[in-house]
Amino acid sequence: MTQHPTRADAVALDLASPLRARRELFALPDGVVYLDGNSLGALPRAVAPRLQQVVAEEWGTGLISSWNTADWVGLGRRVGDRIAPLIGVAPGDVHVGDSTTVTLFKTFVAASRLRPGRRVVVLEPTTFPTDGYVAAGVARMLDLELRWCDPADPAASLDEDVALLSLTHVDFRSGAMYDLAALTAAAHDAGALVQWDLCHSTGAVPVALLDADADIAVGCTYKYLNGGPGSPAFAWVHPRHQAAWDQPVTGWFGHSRPFDMDRAFTPADGIARMASGTPPVLALSALDAALDVFDGVSLDVLRAASLSLTDLFLELVNARLGSAFEVITPREHGRRGSQVSLRHEQAYGVVQALVERGVVGDFRTPDVARFGFAPLYVTHADVFDAVGHLVAVLEGDEHLRPEYTVRNAVT
Amino acid sequence: MTQHPTRADAVALDLASPLRARRELFALPDGVVYLDGNSLGALPRAVAPRLQQVVAEEWGTGLISSWNTADWVGLGRRVGDRIAPLIGVAPGDVHVGDSTTVTLFKTFVAASRLRPGRRVVVLEPTTFPTDGYVAAGVARMLDLELRWCDPADPAASLDEDVALLSLTHVDFRSGAMYDLAALTAAAHDAGALVQWDLCHSTGAVPVALLDADADIAVGCTYKYLNGGPGSPAFAWVHPRHQAAWDQPVTGWFGHSRPFDMDRAFTPADGIARMASGTPPVLALSALDAALDVFDGVSLDVLRAASLSLTDLFLELVNARLGSAFEVITPREHGRRGSQVSLRHEQAYGVVQALVERGVVGDFRTPDVARFGFAPLYVTHADVFDAVGHLVAVLEGDEHLRPEYTVRNAVT
Repeated sequence: MTQHPTRADAVALDLASPLRARRELFALPDGVVYLDGNSLGALPRAVAPRLQQVVAEEWGTGLISSWNTADWVGLGRRVGDRIAPLIGVAPGDVHVGDSTTVTLFKTFVAASRLRPGRRVVVLEPTTFPTDGYVAAGVARMLDLELRWCDPADPAASLDEDVALLSLTHVDFRSGAMYDLAALTAAAHDAGALVQWDLCHSTGAVPVALLDADADIAVGCTYKYLNGGPGSPAFAWVHPRHQAAWDQPVTGWFGHSRPFDMDRAFTPADGIARMASGTPPVLALSALDAALDVFDGVSLDVLRAASLSLTDLFLELVNARLGSAFEVITPREHGRRGSQVSLRHEQAYGVVQALVERGVVGDFRTPDVARFGFAPLYVTHADVFDAVGHLVAVLEGDEHLRPEYTVRNAVT
Repeated sequence: MTQHPTRADAVALDLASPLRARRELFALPDGVVYLDGNSLGALPRAVAPRLQQVVAEEWGTGLISSWNTADWVGLGRRVGDRIAPLIGVAPGDVHVGDSTTVTLFKTFVAASRLRPGRRVVVLEPTTFPTDGYVAAGVARMLDLELRWCDPADPAASLDEDVALLSLTHVDFRSGAMYDLAALTAAAHDAGALVQWDLCHSTGAVPVALLDADADIAVGCTYKYLNGGPGSPAFAWVHPRHQAAWDQPVTGWFGHSRPFDMDRAFTPADGIARMASGTPPVLALSALDAALDVFDGVSLDVLRAASLSLTDLFLELVNARLGSAFEVITPREHGRRGSQVSLRHEQAYGVVQALVERGVVGDFRTPDVARFGFAPLYVTHADVFDAVGHLVAVLEGDEHLRPEYTVRNAVT
């Protein structure tokens, strides 16, 4: 094994970090190194008091009047306005309200309607499964064709039949990141629209949708945005497409005048037409409070912290574990998200044995151990300790325990 | 004005009610008579502590492991099992997860796919607007035809072209209730399926879907089920249709093995295929706690209490206000839900003036004042007091204040 940074080096990096005070904004359990914020973000301390206030005061005391007095009607828009700077778009253009899957359903249909003469939707085969399931459902319904591209070269699948290129910015399994601007340009060169799934990038990786001239984006809020389990997704549509945007789940909250109770549907102006039903006020309130942790944080600082963590993890794994794992996450900064994924035949056992030791990563079938580095609350000391436990697991053959041959559902 | 029950009579009715202890399960503000539970149910006391526990312990401490240890994966099913007896169906056949609008979208598409040779969907023109908006969106996408029936005789619109008759069990504006069993039989006689929108009946009016042999039902949980603002809707599909049930928003939580991350979509067995995205854990937990108030309450007792309240309201309005209002809610028990709606040219002003006095009903355009009677927390004394304030509003011309000429959005 080669020389590598010590725990003291890691602690020194933490002390020098401009984000060092942010960890205190989260309620992390003692004795846990949490490297699964790419699946479920940790709990921001601001959430519980906000939910108590919303439940006791807005709902309990304000009752129905809170739709006006607490502006529940505008809550989704206000939350969207706070997500906007994290993805490089203007306030007023982000909708928040439904699950990621439902949101993707709406955007797949609406995007395909913007290119009626084209009937191919291109996806990469490594995308998160729900993206593919939704696209397949939409394709069957609208008589479109799904085309699975080469993940190493999505642009090669573009031609004059392609209505939409839908890519995941950061891959959920490998942590590899696409060049958002270059692939957006390639799609436009082919006359196609491009949709970015930002589930594994927003809140950890800078996203500059307007600079890249992207068309559509959808993202999750319960990973690096820490909105809580099953918190509602966001969607962004470039302003140039909003007037013609025609999403299929036409409901009263997407109506231009919901409380007129007209028989005919007239879509609201702008991104508001992405809404369908009554907004999920409790979940949106939790998310709103959770977003406080990003106040005053620049995306550049966030990115530097993320890369410093994943760099250290990669260096320590390389130095202390050598070839025990195949690193499937790109080492090149420009192609790396905020997680590192290690391939190992007993990856499931490795993850479970680490959890027993208080180091929480997760497993993705068939053989990937994932470690997410949420830069607002993961420290370099955490990284050092996690690798120490990983070494101990392998040295003690803890990952080979017989109980780890049966797998639990873990998201 | 004729003789009418006194406040002492009302209090005596409350003391004799088998539900008299239930009101204490709700955190109602002092000095408020809340007659808007048909729009947003009051806050059950069990919600706040449950949310605190879910946030602090399940999310904050359990983190990602709570998908297994707190069975977040099965939470929607467990909540559905608690709603099942309120709508007369078996546990295991109710899905809870998306907004009412999104849920209706799925059921409209899936229902129409069960009758591929028929292309007409029948709706009544007085339905809640979102039902019509969704149906219109589905019809446009799938090349179906919407047919608006005569609300007084929906069966007259049925013929061999009708795939689905979709009716609202209790009308949101008038409070009129359809004969669920008779109209279900009429739809089946015409070879059509029937879908019941139970938003304004579940939790206040007995619903017996299996007895009536209904096909599909969708309902809201933030009205008489008190799940909180924007809480997720439920859907029931008769077991005979579940194997062929083909809803369009195919996502990973509706997959038979979500965590295998297969490329191909294979729907889960049974009602579980209604799921799309990651379940909204906070909202489902709040709803789960809210449902405690129904533990041990029979639907017959609930119905008797509801009718006793609306009977008293109608009697007092008739006796003390004479012809000041047109009562648009049926007086016949078999055709009345759990609300009473009064028509008045200045209905908006009437509702606002009552709110000023602490009596909360709501207004529906253009001229309807609605009063909902949630039988678990509205008392006969509330009814007596509300009518007293109504008399005072009209006697003092409080409804004619100039500020009431501008209308706020109120759901």
